[in-house]
Amino acid sequence: MIPRYARPEMTAIWSPETKFRIWYEIEAHACDAQADLGVIPRENAEAVWKAQHVEFDVARIDEIEAVTKHDVIAFLTHLAEHIGSEEARFVHQGMTSSDVLDTTLNVQLVRAADILLADMDKLLAALKKRAMEHKDTVRIGRSHGIHAEPTTMGLTFARFYAEMDRNKTRLEAAREEVATGAISGAIGTFANIDPAVEEHVCAKMGLRPEPISTQVIPRDRHAMFFATLGVIASSIENIAIEIRHMQRTEVLEAEEFFSPGQKGSSAMPHKRNPVLTENLTGLARLVRMAVIPAMENVALWHERDISHSSVERGIAPDATITLDFALNRLAGVVEKLVIYPENMLANMNRFKGLVMSQRVLLALTQAGVSREDAYRLVQRNAMKVWEHGKDFREELLADPEVTAALSPAEIEEKFDLGYHTKHVDTIFARVFGEAA
Amino acid sequence: MIPRYARPEMTAIWSPETKFRIWYEIEAHACDAQADLGVIPRENAEAVWKAQHVEFDVARIDEIEAVTKHDVIAFLTHLAEHIGSEEARFVHQGMTSSDVLDTTLNVQLVRAADILLADMDKLLAALKKRAMEHKDTVRIGRSHGIHAEPTTMGLTFARFYAEMDRNKTRLEAAREEVATGAISGAIGTFANIDPAVEEHVCAKMGLRPEPISTQVIPRDRHAMFFATLGVIASSIENIAIEIRHMQRTEVLEAEEFFSPGQKGSSAMPHKRNPVLTENLTGLARLVRMAVIPAMENVALWHERDISHSSVERGIAPDATITLDFALNRLAGVVEKLVIYPENMLANMNRFKGLVMSQRVLLALTQAGVSREDAYRLVQRNAMKVWEHGKDFREELLADPEVTAALSPAEIEEKFDLGYHTKHVDTIFARVFGEAA
Amino acid sequence: MIPRYARPEMTAIWSPETKFRIWYEIEAHACDAQADLGVIPRENAEAVWKAQHVEFDVARIDEIEAVTKHDVIAFLTHLAEHIGSEEARFVHQGMTSSDVLDTTLNVQLVRAADILLADMDKLLAALKKRAMEHKDTVRIGRSHGIHAEPTTMGLTFARFYAEMDRNKTRLEAAREEVATGAISGAIGTFANIDPAVEEHVCAKMGLRPEPISTQVIPRDRHAMFFATLGVIASSIENIAIEIRHMQRTEVLEAEEFFSPGQKGSSAMPHKRNPVLTENLTGLARLVRMAVIPAMENVALWHERDISHSSVERGIAPDATITLDFALNRLAGVVEKLVIYPENMLANMNRFKGLVMSQRVLLALTQAGVSREDAYRLVQRNAMKVWEHGKDFREELLADPEVTAALSPAEIEEKFDLGYHTKHVDTIFARVFGEAA
Amino acid sequence: MIPRYARPEMTAIWSPETKFRIWYEIEAHACDAQADLGVIPRENAEAVWKAQHVEFDVARIDEIEAVTKHDVIAFLTHLAEHIGSEEARFVHQGMTSSDVLDTTLNVQLVRAADILLADMDKLLAALKKRAMEHKDTVRIGRSHGIHAEPTTMGLTFARFYAEMDRNKTRLEAAREEVATGAISGAIGTFANIDPAVEEHVCAKMGLRPEPISTQVIPRDRHAMFFATLGVIASSIENIAIEIRHMQRTEVLEAEEFFSPGQKGSSAMPHKRNPVLTENLTGLARLVRMAVIPAMENVALWHERDISHSSVERGIAPDATITLDFALNRLAGVVEKLVIYPENMLANMNRFKGLVMSQRVLLALTQAGVSREDAYRLVQRNAMKVWEHGKDFREELLADPEVTAALSPAEIEEKFDLGYHTKHVDTIFARVFGEAA
Repeated sequence: MIPRYARPEMTAIWSPETKFRIWYEIEAHACDAQADLGVIPRENAEAVWKAQHVEFDVARIDEIEAVTKHDVIAFLTHLAEHIGSEEARFVHQGMTSSDVLDTTLNVQLVRAADILLADMDKLLAALKKRAMEHKDTVRIGRSHGIHAEPTTMGLTFARFYAEMDRNKTRLEAAREEVATGAISGAIGTFANIDPAVEEHVCAKMGLRPEPISTQVIPRDRHAMFFATLGVIASSIENIAIEIRHMQRTEVLEAEEFFSPGQKGSSAMPHKRNPVLTENLTGLARLVRMAVIPAMENVALWHERDISHSSVERGIAPDATITLDFALNRLAGVVEKLVIYPENMLANMNRFKGLVMSQRVLLALTQAGVSREDAYRLVQRNAMKVWEHGKDFREELLADPEVTAALSPAEIEEKFDLGYHTKHVDTIFARVFGEAA
Repeated sequence: MIPRYARPEMTAIWSPETKFRIWYEIEAHACDAQADLGVIPRENAEAVWKAQHVEFDVARIDEIEAVTKHDVIAFLTHLAEHIGSEEARFVHQGMTSSDVLDTTLNVQLVRAADILLADMDKLLAALKKRAMEHKDTVRIGRSHGIHAEPTTMGLTFARFYAEMDRNKTRLEAAREEVATGAISGAIGTFANIDPAVEEHVCAKMGLRPEPISTQVIPRDRHAMFFATLGVIASSIENIAIEIRHMQRTEVLEAEEFFSPGQKGSSAMPHKRNPVLTENLTGLARLVRMAVIPAMENVALWHERDISHSSVERGIAPDATITLDFALNRLAGVVEKLVIYPENMLANMNRFKGLVMSQRVLLALTQAGVSREDAYRLVQRNAMKVWEHGKDFREELLADPEVTAALSPAEIEEKFDLGYHTKHVDTIFARVFGEAA
Repeated sequence: MIPRYARPEMTAIWSPETKFRIWYEIEAHACDAQADLGVIPRENAEAVWKAQHVEFDVARIDEIEAVTKHDVIAFLTHLAEHIGSEEARFVHQGMTSSDVLDTTLNVQLVRAADILLADMDKLLAALKKRAMEHKDTVRIGRSHGIHAEPTTMGLTFARFYAEMDRNKTRLEAAREEVATGAISGAIGTFANIDPAVEEHVCAKMGLRPEPISTQVIPRDRHAMFFATLGVIASSIENIAIEIRHMQRTEVLEAEEFFSPGQKGSSAMPHKRNPVLTENLTGLARLVRMAVIPAMENVALWHERDISHSSVERGIAPDATITLDFALNRLAGVVEKLVIYPENMLANMNRFKGLVMSQRVLLALTQAGVSREDAYRLVQRNAMKVWEHGKDFREELLADPEVTAALSPAEIEEKFDLGYHTKHVDTIFARVFGEAA
Repeated sequence: MIPRYARPEMTAIWSPETKFRIWYEIEAHACDAQADLGVIPRENAEAVWKAQHVEFDVARIDEIEAVTKHDVIAFLTHLAEHIGSEEARFVHQGMTSSDVLDTTLNVQLVRAADILLADMDKLLAALKKRAMEHKDTVRIGRSHGIHAEPTTMGLTFARFYAEMDRNKTRLEAAREEVATGAISGAIGTFANIDPAVEEHVCAKMGLRPEPISTQVIPRDRHAMFFATLGVIASSIENIAIEIRHMQRTEVLEAEEFFSPGQKGSSAMPHKRNPVLTENLTGLARLVRMAVIPAMENVALWHERDISHSSVERGIAPDATITLDFALNRLAGVVEKLVIYPENMLANMNRFKGLVMSQRVLLALTQAGVSREDAYRLVQRNAMKVWEHGKDFREELLADPEVTAALSPAEIEEKFDLGYHTKHVDTIFARVFGEAA
């Protein structure tokens, strides 16, 4: 966890205090269920709730763990210090450490997913707002970084909206993947604990029982979870790259908002760098690097060893905290992005009329010119624009082979921008629904 | 693609012949739609279908591409050689190369997914069959590679079944992710082609129209697809590791089927190595290595460059072919796995009765002994078994502190195996449904 | 291996024919050494060389392997078909399959490294040539994609030269890593074969004996090898990104060479896309994806299982073939890159004089203005250029707070380009040696 | 950074205090060099050293950065608060932020490498000690997890020693890779700062000048550094896997040291789990996950953007801290590993005499039996041992086809363990030098 790329709400999920609190709730709910089953005395179950308002002493638990070298035992020992060792003697009965650890991890991941889903809503709202605002702001579409044909800035935002909306759906699925708990005892056979305990604890903690857990909750679920975070991060990088391109000096179609006190460079005061989106490019890599270790974690020895644990101590907080920060940063960047429509037009017209070449090509073909000939005619005139700064329309009007096929009015019509934006409404309706 | 790890049906999807066939179909269906719209003459659309039974000449297309340095143009030129350049002049009208390339890739990925889904059915059937067969075959459950408590071999298979069943659901979702096509023209604005063409072509090719494509189909879809393959591969590794462990000399609870002519080692004729599952361990890595490049492919410049293309030429065939092979190999290994129930029992009893220690611990606690004392008592006797080969039951019966809390009959009862298998039916019902 | 991204010389290293040839040579040299030791009869050793000019029949060996399910045994059986089973009976004596397989892999990797080293020489030569040619071609240096201060195109090439030169040194080290062979028999104890055999075979095959091989050659060597290829690939991506940026429409400081017959786009005939460097961006990912599997291969069970084998069947040919292709493609791109010095100047002057702001800032500071004030003065005038298209020099000359600190001549002097290029020679000498 | 997997000395390198201290030293040394050159007044350079014993106030710097949004400017502002803004006005003159940031990162990486090198010495010492101690402790060598032929425990340790020794050499090379500094000013042209400043600062900070830095120090160096850490981590995993295998219940040839107070399981008091080496398996993945992001960092836009920075804020501390912890943990595990030679013998003799099959095979071949026949004879008798628990030697002595070729004495001789260990000295001399 890198403090400067962390937000408090997400960070809190991964604090020792939160972890011990969840451990406690799992143990207490399990005692209730055991009492319901008549396995342990009701008063012992009730005694556990005496600690409900206790803030567990992390330092003390660490101290005990230093001796026992076992974290769950250390916690249970500390819990007994609060509720009395006599009263505590049925706590954890029939359970194994993994029951507590794995169920807790999933509670944390579900909570983290909920924050991330809210983040995505914020980002989606910003993308939609900017899409609507710039629905008709014409800019040149580029492929390979090369001018192609006109499009609108709104379509760019809509495109990112659709991608992030897919990511939200994926994240909802990923959340469901990890929304399971297991209280199945050593080896997961329920030999020492009734399945009813698992059902009760899971219901209380907002989870579904894991159908078959063989002690640990299977890690294919977590692999899928982190893989999904990796895809979302890659989409963040995708948007970040677009903004970085728009801000580069020669393009300058947009800029990250630059607050009054901010200094772009210690050396060059005129510089306004796209540092937030460059930062997001890097953060995307940090999230993505969790994916392969999460997949390596799937293969456990005889389905249950502890090699995954240290990995998850790293990637679970790091990937969720970083992604939470990145989604929020990106939402802010999009929300406040300064857009320069006039520069968009200037860029589009840099090579006068050239971006209309495909329309002319098609018109020639439809006028009966062979595809090969049409291509040659268009390329011949295009090269004059490209290399000698000529105006494409004028060159076409002056090319007798072209005018033999197309009338001046037909040529003029090919330079109408409305031609290129006529389906923007159709696409917006696809992305945002008919009401858009 | 590694020939020895490739099956013909999947390999065929990725042949140049298949690719050109799909290109052809897309172009031909697009012409039909254009004719329906009155954009091109009906007879030109019909002319394209003259080539329906042509096997395109890959070498000839390569030859043309060597000059044009553009694959789609090379194909169209070759197509014109078949149907006449006059008749062919409306082919591809209003389209851009990506319309053909990206839609084709998704057709291929959908077909590949269908094969993989069938593979998974085969694997699931094998896992279920072996689960049922060994539902009550007792073996020792292990955690950290250390004996823990009894379980059954059927639960191990059921566990893998549940994991692979989840993977099938994930693969179905991944298939839907890439089941989109785009015929939206340069920059994806539909400026030069009506959305109706896209709808027609997609319907014919078994795809949904991509809501907003901005020329290329967005690569977050493919990132999710390959990430899902990576998770499946990791589950294959998980099963492979279990089998490799079972086959190691000291464990020998199962062996890969060893056919009569097979030689295990050039040097040691008695050796029977788990080479198939070792191979699967490696194949899992090969599939998984596609995940990060697929994620790196998401961020394109201005949403459309061609950097992803070379990556996909590698990973799309390689990951699907390897996974198809691996799933089939694994299904075969599971189907024919030789299982040694007697060795399972022998292993379980290696430290006489020790695996029942947790039951004794619980019984002592329930009989009023404090958890700390009970732990001490159990550990004291357990150590005699572990270190001196004693019999755990006999030691307990001879320990006055133990017998002060538990009667001989109560101690005996703790060594009943049925105690550990009593919930196998419950778990099987969770995994395979009540009918199981 | 993707045929379109493969060159014959490198591909040949990985053919079955080459592999069997190396197997043969290892076995034959081992027999010689065994005969020298008196372990096997000299005539049997000599008999093996009867097959020296045989081209082994791959299909026949595959046929035998289909029965034996063991590749080395299949080969030995086939070899016996050539030299007689009586004569062949001492071949492979005391050896284990890994002796042949691992030593062969390393022979192949060393040969691959030699080709890659020659590729790098070609690339280095191209980079040096272009560096010299454009040593004094002024262009704007950019950071964050934003104009900063002047530099020269030659420095860009020199920078890439230095990086690739480091990569060459790394590749030489990586080649040494894998230039070992092992003929140490089962488990690597030399129980059945004298270390002298290993020494003889290694010497003949251009390798050093692996000091301790425990059957397999340890895979940390290969992990390091592939990691090095990943670094080189990343440097290729670095150069490719620079060229793609230079070619984007608004920048247009350079273009990939565009041959007469080439078509940039099926739709827009004027387009010239940086397809080679986009392709290289993707190829870099393909090479890099070998790194993690190669590292996962290091941990073998009891130091020797076969899980790494399937991985290496994929990554060894794929990564070396792809990198070989990429280095050659990049050398060609650099060699023929079309550079537009006039566009470089035009871009640099896009915001008139602004790129000199740091010099003015320094001058103000040295003239006694506080850093904070100097910063404010420069930024104030810079903003007029940035936002209103003013000329930076003129604005400074008209700003009384500035002229209070600097005379007009002092201001004028700050706009001298020679100031920025004065250390180009120093840097070239560092990179290319004093003679440069 | 995961606190439980972090050691103070390494963690301290990455504290804000250390970072600001290095920034300070770089700025102060740069002022000295500037004064030597006569660029700035000597007294201003000397004034900077007034802050030599200041502990910079991290909270205050953060506070300033919250306004300026630029970390280096924030630091310089704070520095001026200590030495006076008048005196401070020449600090950082001619430099750019990257000069400070990149040089600092490399100072930190070099210091981290020095700690890691010391860690490796500790680990190497432990491996060597255990190798010497168990040089002649016979155990069965395994391949594929299957018994093969005898070897010694000392060879296993020697094997790991050799691998870690290579890693040390690699780490030394990686340290050299990043032991460069750059004080080359904006865009790296030295336009505003003389190369002599760079030389002076680098000499003082223990670095070499980066030959050509174009503002940032090229990231291929860091990619190589982290790739090397990834290889070392993979070797740690390799050793960890071996120990985990040795500790599994059925094998039990070694155990991690189990301190008196330690509890293996909350449920099963007899359990002693290889938790340290399982933990190391996971830590290896955490270190390895830095490799790909470090390689993705190489390609910067126009050779200098800031996308790498957030990545390095994560991976630089995390990978070095985790690896430092892991190397120390592993050294401790090796040092204290409890080894059970008697279990090694028992395991080896589990299938009576079978591990000698290869010797018999060879003897039969040398006695004139064809390889195919010898193989059949050995396999026939081996199967009786494998399947029916027979004694291999007795079966051979009773097989007339065998005794037709080999005398009883010759058969007996094949079961001599000394045969397998006769080259242990040779191998030790290769690994540890002749003196070993």
